[in-house]
Amino acid sequence: MYIHETQLRVRYGETDQMGYLYYGNYALYYEVGRTESLRSLGFSYKGLEEIGIMLPVVHLQSEYFRPAFYDDLVTIRTRLEQLPEKSEITFVSELFNEKGKLLNRGRVTLVFYDKAQKKKTLMPQSLYDALAPYYQEKSSFM
Amino acid sequence: MYIHETQLRVRYGETDQMGYLYYGNYALYYEVGRTESLRSLGFSYKGLEEIGIMLPVVHLQSEYFRPAFYDDLVTIRTRLEQLPEKSEITFVSELFNEKGKLLNRGRVTLVFYDKAQKKKTLMPQSLYDALAPYYQEKSSFM
Amino acid sequence: MYIHETQLRVRYGETDQMGYLYYGNYALYYEVGRTESLRSLGFSYKGLEEIGIMLPVVHLQSEYFRPAFYDDLVTIRTRLEQLPEKSEITFVSELFNEKGKLLNRGRVTLVFYDKAQKKKTLMPQSLYDALAPYYQEKSSFM
Amino acid sequence: MYIHETQLRVRYGETDQMGYLYYGNYALYYEVGRTESLRSLGFSYKGLEEIGIMLPVVHLQSEYFRPAFYDDLVTIRTRLEQLPEKSEITFVSELFNEKGKLLNRGRVTLVFYDKAQKKKTLMPQSLYDALAPYYQEKSSFM
Repeated sequence: MYIHETQLRVRYGETDQMGYLYYGNYALYYEVGRTESLRSLGFSYKGLEEIGIMLPVVHLQSEYFRPAFYDDLVTIRTRLEQLPEKSEITFVSELFNEKGKLLNRGRVTLVFYDKAQKKKTLMPQSLYDALAPYYQEKSSFM
Repeated sequence: MYIHETQLRVRYGETDQMGYLYYGNYALYYEVGRTESLRSLGFSYKGLEEIGIMLPVVHLQSEYFRPAFYDDLVTIRTRLEQLPEKSEITFVSELFNEKGKLLNRGRVTLVFYDKAQKKKTLMPQSLYDALAPYYQEKSSFM
Repeated sequence: MYIHETQLRVRYGETDQMGYLYYGNYALYYEVGRTESLRSLGFSYKGLEEIGIMLPVVHLQSEYFRPAFYDDLVTIRTRLEQLPEKSEITFVSELFNEKGKLLNRGRVTLVFYDKAQKKKTLMPQSLYDALAPYYQEKSSFM
Repeated sequence: MYIHETQLRVRYGETDQMGYLYYGNYALYYEVGRTESLRSLGFSYKGLEEIGIMLPVVHLQSEYFRPAFYDDLVTIRTRLEQLPEKSEITFVSELFNEKGKLLNRGRVTLVFYDKAQKKKTLMPQSLYDALAPYYQEKSSFM
Protein backbone atom coordinates (compact mmCIF):
# COMPACT_ATOMS: atom_id res chain seq x y z
CA MET A 1 0.00 0.00 0.00
CA TYR A 2 1.28 3.43 -0.85
CA ILE A 3 1.32 5.88 2.07
CA HIS A 4 2.66 9.42 2.08
CA GLU A 5 2.80 12.21 4.64
CA THR A 6 2.91 15.96 4.29
CA GLN A 7 2.18 18.89 6.61
CA LEU A 8 0.11 22.05 6.43
CA ARG A 9 -0.45 24.81 8.92
CA VAL A 10 -4.02 26.06 9.42
CA ARG A 11 -4.42 29.59 8.06
CA TYR A 12 -6.46 32.27 9.78
CA GLY A 13 -8.61 32.66 6.69
CA GLU A 14 -9.41 28.95 6.78
CA THR A 15 -10.99 29.13 10.24
CA ASP A 16 -14.59 30.11 10.88
CA GLN A 17 -16.15 32.00 13.75
CA MET A 18 -16.22 28.87 15.91
CA GLY A 19 -12.43 29.03 15.67
CA TYR A 20 -12.40 25.73 13.79
CA LEU A 21 -10.93 24.91 10.41
CA TYR A 22 -14.12 25.32 8.33
CA TYR A 23 -15.55 21.95 7.34
CA GLY A 24 -15.38 22.78 3.64
CA ASN A 25 -11.69 23.59 3.76
CA TYR A 26 -10.63 20.03 4.53
CA ALA A 27 -11.08 19.37 0.82
CA LEU A 28 -8.06 21.61 0.19
CA TYR A 29 -6.02 19.59 2.67
CA TYR A 30 -6.96 16.32 1.00
CA GLU A 31 -6.05 17.91 -2.34
CA VAL A 32 -2.58 18.85 -1.10
CA GLY A 33 -2.16 15.34 0.33
CA ARG A 34 -3.04 13.79 -3.04
CA THR A 35 -0.81 16.15 -5.00
CA GLU A 36 2.18 15.61 -2.75
CA SER A 37 1.72 11.84 -2.61
CA LEU A 38 1.73 11.72 -6.42
CA ARG A 39 4.74 14.07 -6.55
CA SER A 40 6.67 11.73 -4.25
CA LEU A 41 6.09 9.02 -6.86
CA GLY A 42 7.49 11.28 -9.54
CA PHE A 43 4.07 12.26 -10.79
CA SER A 44 2.48 15.63 -11.15
CA TYR A 45 -1.22 16.29 -11.14
CA LYS A 46 -0.40 19.31 -13.28
CA GLY A 47 1.41 17.11 -15.75
CA LEU A 48 -1.64 14.88 -16.08
CA GLU A 49 -3.70 17.87 -17.13
CA GLU A 50 -1.03 18.87 -19.60
CA ILE A 51 -1.43 15.55 -21.40
CA GLY A 52 -5.18 16.07 -21.48
CA ILE A 53 -6.27 14.01 -18.48
CA MET A 54 -8.39 15.69 -15.85
CA LEU A 55 -9.27 14.21 -12.49
CA PRO A 56 -12.64 15.52 -11.37
CA VAL A 57 -13.92 14.35 -7.99
CA VAL A 58 -16.97 12.10 -8.07
CA HIS A 59 -17.29 11.19 -4.41
CA LEU A 60 -16.19 12.66 -1.09
CA GLN A 61 -16.70 11.41 2.41
CA SER A 62 -15.41 13.15 5.54
CA GLU A 63 -15.53 12.22 9.18
CA TYR A 64 -14.76 14.99 11.66
CA PHE A 65 -13.43 13.69 14.97
CA ARG A 66 -11.76 16.75 16.53
CA PRO A 67 -11.49 20.34 15.37
CA ALA A 68 -8.31 21.72 13.83
CA PHE A 69 -7.48 25.19 15.11
CA TYR A 70 -5.69 28.21 13.72
CA ASP A 71 -1.93 27.73 13.45
CA ASP A 72 -2.12 23.98 14.14
CA LEU A 73 0.49 22.08 12.19
CA VAL A 74 -1.55 19.30 10.63
CA THR A 75 -0.04 16.09 9.32
CA ILE A 76 -1.86 14.66 6.32
CA ARG A 77 -1.34 10.95 5.83
CA THR A 78 -2.55 9.99 2.38
CA ARG A 79 -2.90 6.43 1.21
CA LEU A 80 -4.12 4.50 -1.76
CA GLU A 81 -5.81 1.49 -0.22
CA GLN A 82 -5.74 -0.46 -3.42
CA LEU A 83 -4.30 -0.26 -6.86
CA PRO A 84 -6.77 1.84 -8.83
CA GLU A 85 -8.94 -0.13 -11.19
CA LYS A 86 -10.33 1.09 -14.45
CA SER A 87 -11.08 4.80 -14.41
CA GLU A 88 -11.31 5.53 -10.71
CA ILE A 89 -8.77 6.28 -8.03
CA THR A 90 -9.58 6.59 -4.34
CA PHE A 91 -7.38 8.37 -1.81
CA VAL A 92 -7.85 8.17 1.95
CA SER A 93 -6.48 11.08 3.94
CA GLU A 94 -6.09 11.10 7.70
CA LEU A 95 -5.29 14.36 9.43
CA PHE A 96 -3.47 14.47 12.75
CA ASN A 97 -2.63 17.34 15.06
CA GLU A 98 0.73 17.91 16.71
CA LYS A 99 -0.19 15.58 19.57
CA GLY A 100 -0.82 12.79 17.11
CA LYS A 101 -4.58 12.88 17.62
CA LEU A 102 -6.71 11.94 14.65
CA LEU A 103 -8.74 14.98 13.59
CA ASN A 104 -10.38 13.91 10.41
CA ARG A 105 -10.59 11.18 7.81
CA GLY A 106 -11.48 11.87 4.21
CA ARG A 107 -12.07 9.52 1.32
CA VAL A 108 -12.03 11.04 -2.14
CA THR A 109 -12.72 9.26 -5.42
CA LEU A 110 -11.65 10.84 -8.67
CA VAL A 111 -12.12 9.80 -12.26
CA PHE A 112 -9.55 9.84 -15.04
CA TYR A 113 -11.24 11.90 -17.73
CA ASP A 114 -10.02 12.47 -21.25
CA LYS A 115 -10.56 16.14 -21.99
CA ALA A 116 -10.40 15.83 -25.77
CA GLN A 117 -12.64 12.78 -26.05
CA LYS A 118 -14.89 14.01 -23.26
CA LYS A 119 -15.17 10.64 -21.61
CA LYS A 120 -13.68 8.51 -18.85
CA THR A 121 -10.34 6.98 -19.58
CA LEU A 122 -7.98 4.49 -17.97
CA MET A 123 -5.29 5.45 -15.49
CA PRO A 124 -2.11 6.29 -17.44
CA GLN A 125 0.19 3.28 -17.71
CA SER A 126 3.09 5.24 -16.22
CA LEU A 127 1.10 5.88 -13.04
CA TYR A 128 0.13 2.23 -12.88
CA ASP A 129 3.78 1.23 -13.21
CA ALA A 130 4.81 3.59 -10.43
CA LEU A 131 2.12 2.28 -8.08
CA ALA A 132 2.12 -1.42 -8.86
CA PRO A 133 5.23 -2.31 -6.81
CA TYR A 134 3.45 -1.19 -3.63
CA TYR A 135 0.66 -3.69 -4.21
CA GLN A 136 2.62 -6.69 -5.45
CA GLU A 137 2.13 -8.97 -2.50
CA LYS A 138 -1.53 -8.40 -2.65
CA SER A 139 -1.65 -8.96 -6.37
CA SER A 140 0.29 -12.21 -6.01
CA PHE A 141 -2.77 -13.62 -4.27
CA MET A 142 -5.06 -12.49 -7.01
CA MET B 1 -40.67 16.01 5.65
CA TYR B 2 -39.34 19.54 5.59
CA ILE B 3 -38.00 20.69 2.20
CA HIS B 4 -36.73 24.13 1.30
CA GLU B 5 -35.22 25.68 -1.82
CA THR B 6 -32.85 28.56 -2.31
CA GLN B 7 -30.60 29.70 -5.16
CA LEU B 8 -26.97 30.70 -5.52
CA ARG B 9 -24.96 31.79 -8.51
CA VAL B 10 -21.50 30.27 -8.96
CA ARG B 11 -18.79 32.88 -8.40
CA TYR B 12 -15.65 33.13 -10.50
CA GLY B 13 -13.53 32.69 -7.39
CA GLU B 14 -15.32 29.45 -6.61
CA THR B 15 -14.30 27.80 -9.86
CA ASP B 16 -11.00 26.03 -10.42
CA GLN B 17 -8.84 25.75 -13.50
CA MET B 18 -10.99 22.94 -14.89
CA GLY B 19 -13.72 25.57 -15.00
CA TYR B 20 -15.74 23.60 -12.45
CA LEU B 21 -17.10 24.73 -9.11
CA TYR B 22 -14.25 23.40 -6.91
CA TYR B 23 -15.27 20.25 -5.07
CA GLY B 24 -14.57 21.78 -1.67
CA ASN B 25 -16.84 24.76 -2.29
CA TYR B 26 -20.00 22.67 -2.33
CA ALA B 27 -19.79 22.72 1.47
CA LEU B 28 -20.56 26.46 1.32
CA TYR B 29 -23.62 25.76 -0.82
CA TYR B 30 -24.89 23.14 1.61
CA GLU B 31 -24.29 25.62 4.43
CA VAL B 32 -26.38 28.29 2.73
CA GLY B 33 -29.09 25.71 2.09
CA ARG B 34 -29.16 24.75 5.78
CA THR B 35 -29.16 28.34 6.98
CA GLU B 36 -31.95 29.40 4.66
CA SER B 37 -34.06 26.33 5.41
CA LEU B 38 -33.83 27.10 9.12
CA ARG B 39 -34.58 30.76 8.48
CA SER B 40 -37.75 29.84 6.60
CA LEU B 41 -38.87 28.06 9.79
CA GLY B 42 -38.22 31.22 11.78
CA PHE B 43 -34.89 29.97 13.07
CA SER B 44 -31.48 31.48 12.80
CA TYR B 45 -28.26 29.54 12.94
CA LYS B 46 -26.73 32.75 14.27
CA GLY B 47 -29.33 32.86 17.04
CA LEU B 48 -28.43 29.31 18.10
CA GLU B 49 -24.84 30.39 18.63
CA GLU B 50 -25.99 33.41 20.58
CA ILE B 51 -27.71 31.12 23.10
CA GLY B 52 -24.52 29.07 23.36
CA ILE B 53 -25.29 26.22 21.01
CA MET B 54 -22.81 25.47 18.26
CA LEU B 55 -23.40 23.09 15.38
CA PRO B 56 -20.09 21.59 14.28
CA VAL B 57 -20.17 19.18 11.36
CA VAL B 58 -19.32 15.58 12.18
CA HIS B 59 -19.97 13.91 8.86
CA LEU B 60 -20.13 14.94 5.22
CA GLN B 61 -20.84 12.94 2.13
CA SER B 62 -20.93 14.34 -1.39
CA GLU B 63 -21.76 12.78 -4.72
CA TYR B 64 -20.76 14.74 -7.80
CA PHE B 65 -22.89 13.93 -10.84
CA ARG B 66 -22.28 16.89 -13.16
CA PRO B 67 -20.06 19.95 -12.85
CA ALA B 68 -21.43 23.34 -11.93
CA PHE B 69 -19.92 26.14 -14.01
CA TYR B 70 -19.20 29.80 -13.49
CA ASP B 71 -22.33 31.95 -13.44
CA ASP B 72 -24.68 28.95 -13.24
CA LEU B 73 -27.72 29.70 -11.15
CA VAL B 74 -27.84 26.69 -8.85
CA THR B 75 -30.98 25.63 -6.99
CA ILE B 76 -30.26 24.06 -3.62
CA ARG B 77 -33.03 21.81 -2.37
CA THR B 78 -32.46 21.09 1.31
CA ARG B 79 -34.41 18.54 3.26
CA LEU B 80 -34.48 16.99 6.68
CA GLU B 81 -35.31 13.37 5.99
CA GLN B 82 -36.35 12.71 9.52
CA LEU B 83 -37.02 14.54 12.72
CA PRO B 84 -33.64 14.91 14.36
CA GLU B 85 -33.06 12.58 17.26
CA LYS B 86 -30.94 13.26 20.28
CA SER B 87 -27.97 15.48 19.48
CA GLU B 88 -27.64 15.05 15.74
CA ILE B 89 -29.29 16.66 12.76
CA THR B 90 -28.78 15.54 9.16
CA PHE B 91 -29.50 17.70 6.14
CA VAL B 92 -29.59 16.42 2.57
CA SER B 93 -28.91 18.99 -0.13
CA GLU B 94 -29.49 18.42 -3.81
CA LEU B 95 -28.14 20.92 -6.28
CA PHE B 96 -29.71 21.46 -9.68
CA ASN B 97 -28.67 23.59 -12.62
CA GLU B 98 -30.99 25.82 -14.64
CA LYS B 99 -32.04 22.91 -16.84
CA GLY B 100 -33.16 21.01 -13.76
CA LYS B 101 -30.31 18.51 -13.97
CA LEU B 102 -29.06 17.09 -10.68
CA LEU B 103 -25.45 18.22 -10.17
CA ASN B 104 -24.65 17.07 -6.69
CA ARG B 105 -26.06 15.53 -3.58
CA GLY B 106 -24.63 16.26 -0.14
CA ARG B 107 -25.47 14.79 3.24
CA VAL B 108 -24.22 16.70 6.26
CA THR B 109 -24.59 15.68 9.88
CA LEU B 110 -24.10 18.26 12.61
CA VAL B 111 -24.12 17.97 16.39
CA PHE B 112 -25.80 20.29 18.85
CA TYR B 113 -22.97 21.27 21.14
CA ASP B 114 -23.23 23.26 24.36
CA LYS B 115 -20.39 25.75 24.29
CA ALA B 116 -20.38 26.45 28.03
CA GLN B 117 -20.64 22.85 29.17
CA LYS B 118 -18.39 21.67 26.35
CA LYS B 119 -20.51 18.68 25.52
CA LYS B 120 -23.23 17.49 23.17
CA THR B 121 -26.68 18.70 23.96
CA LEU B 122 -30.23 18.06 22.77
CA MET B 123 -31.83 19.96 19.93
CA PRO B 124 -33.53 23.06 21.35
CA GLN B 125 -37.21 22.44 22.10
CA SER B 126 -38.23 25.41 19.98
CA LEU B 127 -36.61 23.88 16.92
CA TYR B 128 -38.25 20.55 17.65
CA ASP B 129 -41.62 22.28 17.90
CA ALA B 130 -41.08 24.04 14.58
CA LEU B 131 -40.11 20.84 12.83
CA ALA B 132 -42.44 18.30 14.40
CA PRO B 133 -45.55 19.22 12.34
CA TYR B 134 -43.73 18.19 9.17
CA TYR B 135 -43.20 14.68 10.51
CA GLN B 136 -46.51 13.99 12.25
CA GLU B 137 -47.81 11.36 9.90
CA LYS B 138 -44.63 9.45 10.21
CA SER B 139 -44.53 9.74 13.96
CA SER B 140 -48.12 8.50 14.23
CA PHE B 141 -46.80 5.15 13.06
CA MET B 142 -44.09 5.11 15.64
CA MET C 1 -22.07 57.49 -13.80
CA TYR C 2 -23.26 53.91 -13.71
CA ILE C 3 -24.22 52.63 -10.27
CA HIS C 4 -25.71 49.26 -9.39
CA GLU C 5 -26.69 47.52 -6.15
CA THR C 6 -26.90 43.88 -5.21
CA GLN C 7 -26.99 42.00 -1.92
CA LEU C 8 -25.13 39.06 -0.40
CA ARG C 9 -25.42 37.39 2.95
CA VAL C 10 -22.21 36.58 4.81
CA ARG C 11 -21.63 32.81 4.94
CA TYR C 12 -20.29 31.01 7.98
CA GLY C 13 -17.39 29.68 5.95
CA GLU C 14 -16.45 33.22 4.96
CA THR C 15 -15.90 34.33 8.56
CA ASP C 16 -12.68 33.83 10.49
CA GLN C 17 -12.09 33.13 14.15
CA MET C 18 -12.45 36.83 14.99
CA GLY C 19 -16.02 36.41 13.80
CA TYR C 20 -15.35 38.85 10.94
CA LEU C 21 -15.80 38.35 7.24
CA TYR C 22 -12.19 37.41 6.40
CA TYR C 23 -10.37 40.28 4.73
CA GLY C 24 -9.53 38.22 1.66
CA ASN C 25 -13.16 37.30 1.03
CA TYR C 26 -14.20 40.86 0.18
CA ALA C 27 -12.69 40.20 -3.24
CA LEU C 28 -15.53 37.74 -3.86
CA TYR C 29 -18.08 40.38 -2.92
CA TYR C 30 -16.54 42.91 -5.29
CA GLU C 31 -16.57 40.23 -7.98
CA VAL C 32 -20.29 39.59 -7.50
CA GLY C 33 -20.91 43.34 -7.56
CA ARG C 34 -19.05 43.67 -10.87
CA THR C 35 -20.77 40.67 -12.43
CA GLU C 36 -24.25 41.81 -11.43
CA SER C 37 -23.64 45.41 -12.50
CA LEU C 38 -22.58 44.19 -15.95
CA ARG C 39 -25.55 41.82 -16.09
CA SER C 40 -27.91 44.69 -15.37
CA LEU C 41 -26.51 46.36 -18.51
CA GLY C 42 -27.21 43.23 -20.51
CA PHE C 43 -23.62 42.04 -20.32
CA SER C 44 -22.19 38.85 -19.03
CA TYR C 45 -18.69 38.42 -17.76
CA LYS C 46 -19.03 34.80 -18.86
CA GLY C 47 -19.94 35.93 -22.34
CA LEU C 48 -16.82 38.05 -22.56
CA GLU C 49 -14.71 34.99 -21.90
CA GLU C 50 -16.63 33.04 -24.49
CA ILE C 51 -15.59 35.56 -27.15
CA GLY C 52 -11.98 35.23 -25.99
CA ILE C 53 -11.66 38.26 -23.73
CA MET C 54 -10.45 37.71 -20.20
CA LEU C 55 -10.47 40.30 -17.45
CA PRO C 56 -7.61 39.64 -15.06
CA VAL C 57 -7.27 41.97 -12.07
CA VAL C 58 -4.20 44.21 -12.09
CA HIS C 59 -4.89 46.35 -9.04
CA LEU C 60 -6.93 46.07 -5.86
CA GLN C 61 -7.34 48.48 -3.02
CA SER C 62 -9.54 47.87 0.03
CA GLU C 63 -10.39 50.03 3.00
CA TYR C 64 -11.98 48.27 5.96
CA PHE C 65 -14.10 50.57 8.11
CA ARG C 66 -16.27 48.17 10.10
CA PRO C 67 -16.41 44.38 10.22
CA ALA C 68 -19.09 42.39 8.45
CA PHE C 69 -20.43 39.55 10.56
CA TYR C 70 -21.90 36.15 9.89
CA ASP C 71 -25.41 36.31 8.44
CA ASP C 72 -25.24 40.06 7.79
CA LEU C 73 -27.10 41.03 4.66
CA VAL C 74 -24.56 43.19 2.87
CA THR C 75 -25.49 45.68 0.15
CA ILE C 76 -22.82 46.05 -2.52
CA ARG C 77 -22.99 49.34 -4.39
CA THR C 78 -20.83 49.09 -7.49
CA ARG C 79 -19.99 52.03 -9.67
CA LEU C 80 -17.87 52.87 -12.66
CA GLU C 81 -16.55 56.30 -11.87
CA GLN C 82 -15.62 57.02 -15.42
CA LEU C 83 -16.04 55.55 -18.83
CA PRO C 84 -13.23 53.02 -19.19
CA GLU C 85 -10.39 54.15 -21.35
CA LYS C 86 -8.21 51.97 -23.49
CA SER C 87 -7.70 48.55 -21.93
CA GLU C 88 -8.55 49.16 -18.30
CA ILE C 89 -11.78 49.24 -16.36
CA THR C 90 -12.04 50.28 -12.71
CA PHE C 91 -14.95 49.40 -10.45
CA VAL C 92 -15.52 50.90 -7.02
CA SER C 93 -17.56 48.80 -4.60
CA GLU C 94 -18.96 50.08 -1.34
CA LEU C 95 -20.39 47.59 1.11
CA PHE C 96 -23.07 48.55 3.61
CA ASN C 97 -24.66 46.62 6.43
CA GLU C 98 -28.38 46.50 7.18
CA LYS C 99 -28.19 49.70 9.18
CA GLY C 100 -26.73 51.50 6.19
CA LYS C 101 -23.28 51.79 7.74
CA LEU C 102 -20.35 51.74 5.33
CA LEU C 103 -18.27 48.63 6.01
CA ASN C 104 -15.76 48.62 3.24
CA ARG C 105 -14.70 50.28 0.02
CA GLY C 106 -12.87 48.42 -2.71
CA ARG C 107 -11.38 49.64 -5.94
CA VAL C 108 -10.54 47.00 -8.53
CA THR C 109 -8.87 47.58 -11.88
CA LEU C 110 -9.08 44.90 -14.54
CA VAL C 111 -7.55 44.65 -17.99
CA PHE C 112 -9.26 43.52 -21.18
CA TYR C 113 -6.99 40.75 -22.39
CA ASP C 114 -7.22 38.92 -25.69
CA LYS C 115 -6.69 35.25 -24.93
CA ALA C 116 -5.77 34.23 -28.47
CA GLN C 117 -3.39 37.09 -29.15
CA LYS C 118 -2.07 37.02 -25.61
CA LYS C 119 -2.09 40.77 -25.21
CA LYS C 120 -4.17 43.64 -23.91
CA THR C 121 -7.09 44.66 -26.02
CA LEU C 122 -9.67 47.43 -26.10
CA MET C 123 -12.98 47.27 -24.30
CA PRO C 124 -15.52 45.64 -26.63
CA GLN C 125 -17.50 48.24 -28.55
CA SER C 126 -20.78 46.79 -27.35
CA LEU C 127 -19.81 47.40 -23.73
CA TYR C 128 -18.72 50.92 -24.59
CA ASP C 129 -22.08 51.55 -26.24
CA ALA C 130 -23.96 50.26 -23.20
CA LEU C 131 -21.96 52.44 -20.83
CA ALA C 132 -21.54 55.63 -22.82
CA PRO C 133 -25.04 57.03 -22.16
CA TYR C 134 -24.27 57.16 -18.43
CA TYR C 135 -21.30 59.43 -19.02
CA GLN C 136 -22.57 61.74 -21.73
CA GLU C 137 -22.76 64.93 -19.71
CA LYS C 138 -19.25 64.45 -18.58
CA SER C 139 -17.98 63.75 -22.06
CA SER C 140 -19.68 66.89 -23.38
CA PHE C 141 -17.11 68.82 -21.39
CA MET C 142 -14.26 66.91 -22.88
CA MET D 1 14.52 46.56 8.12
CA TYR D 2 13.07 43.17 8.93
CA ILE D 3 12.68 40.84 5.95
CA HIS D 4 11.54 37.25 5.96
CA GLU D 5 10.87 34.62 3.31
CA THR D 6 8.59 31.62 3.21
CA GLN D 7 7.17 29.46 0.44
CA LEU D 8 3.74 28.21 -0.55
CA ARG D 9 2.58 26.05 -3.40
CA VAL D 10 -0.53 27.13 -5.31
CA ARG D 11 -3.42 24.74 -4.65
CA TYR D 12 -5.87 23.62 -7.32
CA GLY D 13 -8.76 24.99 -5.29
CA GLU D 14 -7.08 28.40 -5.21
CA THR D 15 -7.08 28.75 -8.98
CA ASP D 16 -9.99 30.06 -11.00
CA GLN D 17 -11.20 29.13 -14.46
CA MET D 18 -8.60 31.39 -16.07
CA GLY D 19 -6.08 29.03 -14.51
CA TYR D 20 -4.75 31.86 -12.35
CA LEU D 21 -4.43 32.03 -8.59
CA TYR D 22 -7.71 33.90 -7.87
CA TYR D 23 -7.08 37.53 -7.05
CA GLY D 24 -8.80 37.25 -3.67
CA ASN D 25 -6.59 34.37 -2.56
CA TYR D 26 -3.43 36.46 -2.43
CA ALA D 27 -4.70 37.73 0.92
CA LEU D 28 -4.10 34.24 2.31
CA TYR D 29 -0.53 34.29 1.00
CA TYR D 30 0.15 37.66 2.62
CA GLU D 31 -1.35 36.27 5.84
CA VAL D 32 1.00 33.29 5.83
CA GLY D 33 3.91 35.64 5.11
CA ARG D 34 2.98 37.83 8.09
CA THR D 35 2.47 34.88 10.41
CA GLU D 36 5.74 33.23 9.49
CA SER D 37 7.70 36.48 9.68
CA LEU D 38 6.41 37.04 13.22
CA ARG D 39 7.12 33.41 14.11
CA SER D 40 10.72 33.81 12.99
CA LEU D 41 11.01 36.64 15.55
CA GLY D 42 9.66 34.36 18.26
CA PHE D 43 6.18 35.78 18.04
CA SER D 44 2.91 34.08 17.36
CA TYR D 45 -0.13 35.77 15.92
CA LYS D 46 -2.11 33.17 17.82
CA GLY D 47 -0.40 34.16 21.03
CA LEU D 48 -1.37 37.79 20.50
CA GLU D 49 -5.01 36.79 20.38
CA GLU D 50 -4.60 34.70 23.49
CA ILE D 51 -3.54 37.81 25.41
CA GLY D 52 -6.57 39.66 24.07
CA ILE D 53 -5.03 41.54 21.16
CA MET D 54 -6.61 41.15 17.76
CA LEU D 55 -5.13 42.41 14.52
CA PRO D 56 -7.92 43.26 12.09
CA VAL D 57 -6.92 44.50 8.66
CA VAL D 58 -7.78 48.13 7.89
CA HIS D 59 -6.13 48.56 4.53
CA LEU D 60 -5.02 46.33 1.68
CA GLN D 61 -3.39 47.18 -1.59
CA SER D 62 -2.37 44.64 -4.24
CA GLU D 63 -0.59 44.98 -7.52
CA TYR D 64 -0.78 42.03 -9.88
CA PHE D 65 2.14 41.84 -12.29
CA ARG D 66 2.07 38.25 -13.51
CA PRO D 67 -0.31 35.38 -12.77
CA ALA D 68 0.58 32.57 -10.40
CA PHE D 69 -0.44 29.17 -11.71
CA TYR D 70 -1.46 25.89 -10.16
CA ASP D 71 1.42 24.03 -8.50
CA ASP D 72 3.77 27.04 -8.73
CA LEU D 73 6.07 27.22 -5.73
CA VAL D 74 5.70 30.84 -4.68
CA THR D 75 8.25 32.64 -2.53
CA ILE D 76 6.71 35.24 -0.23
CA ARG D 77 9.12 37.94 0.86
CA THR D 78 7.59 39.86 3.74
CA ARG D 79 9.03 43.03 5.14
CA LEU D 80 8.24 45.68 7.69
CA GLU D 81 9.40 48.87 6.03
CA GLN D 82 9.45 50.79 9.25
CA LEU D 83 9.09 50.21 12.94
CA PRO D 84 5.35 50.25 13.61
CA GLU D 85 4.13 53.42 15.24
CA LYS D 86 1.22 53.72 17.60
CA SER D 87 -1.50 51.21 16.80
CA GLU D 88 -0.76 50.29 13.22
CA ILE D 89 1.56 47.82 11.57
CA THR D 90 2.14 47.60 7.81
CA PHE D 91 3.58 44.57 6.06
CA VAL D 92 4.71 44.52 2.45
CA SER D 93 4.69 41.14 0.73
CA GLU D 94 6.29 40.43 -2.59
CA LEU D 95 5.57 37.15 -4.31
CA PHE D 96 8.00 35.55 -6.73
CA ASN D 97 7.71 32.48 -8.92
CA GLU D 98 10.38 29.82 -9.30
CA LYS D 99 12.14 31.83 -11.98
CA GLY D 100 12.47 34.74 -9.59
CA LYS D 101 9.91 36.86 -11.44
CA LEU D 102 7.87 39.25 -9.34
CA LEU D 103 4.22 38.19 -9.49
CA ASN D 104 2.54 40.43 -7.00
CA ARG D 105 3.08 43.04 -4.35
CA GLY D 106 0.72 43.47 -1.41
CA ARG D 107 0.67 46.05 1.33
CA VAL D 108 -1.47 45.24 4.36
CA THR D 109 -2.07 47.50 7.34
CA LEU D 110 -3.44 46.01 10.55
CA VAL D 111 -4.47 47.59 13.83
CA PHE D 112 -3.64 46.36 17.32
CA TYR D 113 -7.06 46.10 18.92
CA ASP D 114 -7.80 45.37 22.57
CA LYS D 115 -10.64 42.86 22.58
CA ALA D 116 -11.70 43.51 26.17
CA GLN D 117 -11.59 47.29 26.00
CA LYS D 118 -12.92 47.29 22.46
CA LYS D 119 -10.51 49.92 21.24
CA LYS D 120 -7.19 50.36 19.51
CA THR D 121 -4.14 49.68 21.58
CA LEU D 122 -0.38 50.05 21.27
CA MET D 123 1.85 47.39 19.84
CA PRO D 124 2.91 45.04 22.68
CA GLN D 125 6.26 46.09 24.17
CA SER D 126 7.70 42.64 23.59
CA LEU D 127 7.07 42.90 19.85
CA TYR D 128 8.61 46.37 19.81
CA ASP D 129 11.69 45.01 21.57
CA ALA D 130 12.03 42.19 19.07
CA LEU D 131 11.72 44.53 16.09
CA ALA D 132 13.66 47.57 17.29
CA PRO D 133 17.14 46.16 16.62
CA TYR D 134 16.36 45.92 12.90
CA TYR D 135 15.64 49.64 12.73
CA GLN D 136 18.33 51.07 15.01
CA GLU D 137 20.52 52.63 12.37
CA LYS D 138 17.58 54.36 10.89
CA SER D 139 16.33 55.62 14.22
CA SER D 140 19.82 56.94 15.07
CA PHE D 141 19.32 59.48 12.31
CA MET D 142 15.98 60.51 13.60
